[in-house]
Amino acid sequence: MHVDIGKLRKLGEAKSSRIIVALDDLPGGVSPQSIDIFLEEIAKYVVGIKIGLPLVLAMDISDVAELIGRFKGDFYFLADFKLADIPSIVKKELSLIERNGFDGAILHLFPLGLEEVLNDKDNISLDVFGLVAMSHPEARLLDQHFGDLLEYSTRLSLSGVVLPATKPELIQKARKYLPPRYTIISPGIGAQGAEPGTALKHGADFEIVGRMLTMSRDPRDVAEKIVEEQRRWLR
Amino acid sequence: MHVDIGKLRKLGEAKSSRIIVALDDLPGGVSPQSIDIFLEEIAKYVVGIKIGLPLVLAMDISDVAELIGRFKGDFYFLADFKLADIPSIVKKELSLIERNGFDGAILHLFPLGLEEVLNDKDNISLDVFGLVAMSHPEARLLDQHFGDLLEYSTRLSLSGVVLPATKPELIQKARKYLPPRYTIISPGIGAQGAEPGTALKHGADFEIVGRMLTMSRDPRDVAEKIVEEQRRWLR
Repeated sequence: MHVDIGKLRKLGEAKSSRIIVALDDLPGGVSPQSIDIFLEEIAKYVVGIKIGLPLVLAMDISDVAELIGRFKGDFYFLADFKLADIPSIVKKELSLIERNGFDGAILHLFPLGLEEVLNDKDNISLDVFGLVAMSHPEARLLDQHFGDLLEYSTRLSLSGVVLPATKPELIQKARKYLPPRYTIISPGIGAQGAEPGTALKHGADFEIVGRMLTMSRDPRDVAEKIVEEQRRWLR
Repeated sequence: MHVDIGKLRKLGEAKSSRIIVALDDLPGGVSPQSIDIFLEEIAKYVVGIKIGLPLVLAMDISDVAELIGRFKGDFYFLADFKLADIPSIVKKELSLIERNGFDGAILHLFPLGLEEVLNDKDNISLDVFGLVAMSHPEARLLDQHFGDLLEYSTRLSLSGVVLPATKPELIQKARKYLPPRYTIISPGIGAQGAEPGTALKHGADFEIVGRMLTMSRDPRDVAEKIVEEQRRWLR
């Protein structure tokens, strides 16, 4: 398991951007063609492409893998299936995610039991991010165990953690607590209410933007504006 | 949202079996052909087919949907992606799961916020099962909130809940607490340590069996033996 996620950071520096797009849907629906056009459009300003379960349920995994292969040099591909199964299944899932060409994967920490799966470095060269908190306000149980999950994240071979831009105080606390090598990626920008730049300002390394970009008529223009906002917080 | 999961119960009565197979893998790997042969083999003794993320990452979703279409009358198809996302994404996932032909889906309750998604009955005709506890012993956070999650499950339009056969005392408590219309399905039989019949004995309605069946050289024979064991607990 990598702990330095070199590719994500390098692409971020090269593009001087901290945007990861959550690619769950597109205005005309998802297909290899529509995604192709979208990726070409935003390539200059976007570092990572986060692919969730909706895409994998709407499009064949072989098409997703082919797409990743084609854009491998341009983007960091992150599988966001919010893995939350028993350890033996999570292990299998990570290995299949890697086989499909993804660079990283997001998993839930609350099911626990991940020590053996993640600390077996020989097995997987995928970056793994642990979900410490979620963006929706109703997530009280997760919020209640924020400290436990944050502490747990440091006992695993993770590349970083996921923390919502809608709860910036949690990002701030996590940044102070976590070792500097842990990358913080942060959803909740745009449709969910947080302004671009909010998460960076509070200590996150990358901001995840979904509908604000994917559902826009001019995604390139929106991406450019978000990057401009982000650059205020990148010295 | 259905609350009576008629199809699962009817197939269970017709086959006089309470087996749901967790189809994550097969000895020679998964393909439309290998699954076809496996399903024909076990059809007499197995009621439901639980399909998890590993299958959807190894095989195209269009092939999975076609397979479901072909065996629709013979089995109850359950999507076990352990959905654990923000409410708007879970809603999207449920609708895509339904569109692929599944009869039911399993989601995590721990992230909360599901009231609006699940109580919007006009939207989805899929059966939905909530995960109240998991089979691995390390799942301390879930176990600690067992009572909260059980109570939460009754406030949602669910068809039933998932409770592990490896923790039979939880099944017993849940059966006493839940309304009788709630169906309890229970993984952990076989490779994970619980004997066939254990979950039924403690109040579950169906037992989920994975590797013990899928990795067997003679799945039909194993299925027959499990059903015999189960029938001791079905009057």
